[in-house]
Amino acid sequence: MNKLYVVGIGPGSAEDMTLRATKALENADVIVGYQVYNDLVRPLFPDKEYLQTPMRQETQRCQMAIDTALAGKITAMICSGDAGVYGMASLVLELSEGIRDIDVEIVPGVTAALSGGALLGAPLGHDFAVISLSDALTPWEMIEQRLRLSAKAGLCLAIYNPASHKRPDYLKRACEILLEYLPPETACGVAANIGRENEFSKTMTLEELKNYPADMFTTVFVGSASTRISGEKLITPRGYRSKEDKDA
Amino acid sequence: MNKLYVVGIGPGSAEDMTLRATKALENADVIVGYQVYNDLVRPLFPDKEYLQTPMRQETQRCQMAIDTALAGKITAMICSGDAGVYGMASLVLELSEGIRDIDVEIVPGVTAALSGGALLGAPLGHDFAVISLSDALTPWEMIEQRLRLSAKAGLCLAIYNPASHKRPDYLKRACEILLEYLPPETACGVAANIGRENEFSKTMTLEELKNYPADMFTTVFVGSASTRISGEKLITPRGYRSKEDKDA
Repeated sequence: MNKLYVVGIGPGSAEDMTLRATKALENADVIVGYQVYNDLVRPLFPDKEYLQTPMRQETQRCQMAIDTALAGKITAMICSGDAGVYGMASLVLELSEGIRDIDVEIVPGVTAALSGGALLGAPLGHDFAVISLSDALTPWEMIEQRLRLSAKAGLCLAIYNPASHKRPDYLKRACEILLEYLPPETACGVAANIGRENEFSKTMTLEELKNYPADMFTTVFVGSASTRISGEKLITPRGYRSKEDKDA
Repeated sequence: MNKLYVVGIGPGSAEDMTLRATKALENADVIVGYQVYNDLVRPLFPDKEYLQTPMRQETQRCQMAIDTALAGKITAMICSGDAGVYGMASLVLELSEGIRDIDVEIVPGVTAALSGGALLGAPLGHDFAVISLSDALTPWEMIEQRLRLSAKAGLCLAIYNPASHKRPDYLKRACEILLEYLPPETACGVAANIGRENEFSKTMTLEELKNYPADMFTTVFVGSASTRISGEKLITPRGYRSKEDKDA
């Protein structure tokens, strides 16, 4: 059976990769990915064959991975973070549907909501939503609606793709929507270049976040009413301590 | 400086742990956790000292970890999945606030939304919410409201703690709320005992999920309008293929 792994490599460092992801890459003949991710992995597995396509050619990249696996080479398609969260898992499964002689294995990884969250402390300590601001594949009105309803629901937020060259003001627009529902002093934070050179995290209020110059390597966290800034950390309590106060 | 790691060990197998988590446990003198998680880790690190408290004594457990670290022993508090997602990270940070001579390091891990998602294919391929049905610390009305608004927002859902002995009908109640907004044929799935003995996943409709006998080791996935069942897998497309159709 032809083997195709779709591997979440985590934020970028070898340390944050799971053993299963490491073994899948060790086992592979060919590694297929976006160039930036191939470059992260290449020093760890220098002897593999590497294939890549530019950004926005995700379908071609996934098809390349499927074709390579069908040609009999053990193939690993790599994704930053988790394979399923804005990764290639769903597209690979779509494109390989109905092909019998391929075994697709999805290998999960630490997505930026978790790795960035850990850097910042515990911003996602209670119910949360993960929302991408990229409108390349999703209508902006739908993204706005999701922000609105998540804020109304009191969910913490992990926001992916907060900005890019083409969308310099999207985080500002998102914050303006959130400010209709959340107070300006809502505890927020950003994490950037997680697990890579120039790793960085910073806490701030929602009002400050509105003008924060996020880039495409930044993950943004917006707290709920119970989230607070504690020094350089964000803490969203699960509720153990307030329950004790109530019980006492 | 006294060291306290708060470590997400992933779903339970050594394979799904990150290298950073493994190193933190290797480096620790004492491992503190809930008994079930200690038992998962003990075979991998048999020479450590283990401390535990029963379920519902989370505050005592975190305090024990802090006290152990302050006594000069390198301590690792373990959590299943991720340290921050319904884990002990926020409580440890709350309890150690203002203590100067302790260095708390949060080590992220693969939470059940990701590991269970990978087992099921790609149910979280687009924006999603993570919601716990446990009302031990959260009013049920708030949980209901979050389910309602997430469904209205078209978010996929990963539902944690769908049931327990004390709450056998909570998943049914949740599904009844979701069915006010989502069609009965909405693509859903469950993953149980992920990375452990009797690992198991299954796809089903929302109508079928309503009567599914979930237990406390089950994670539940509810799709959005675009999620579909493909054989034994759940696929939530990001939108690459429909964009191509539009562009063609």
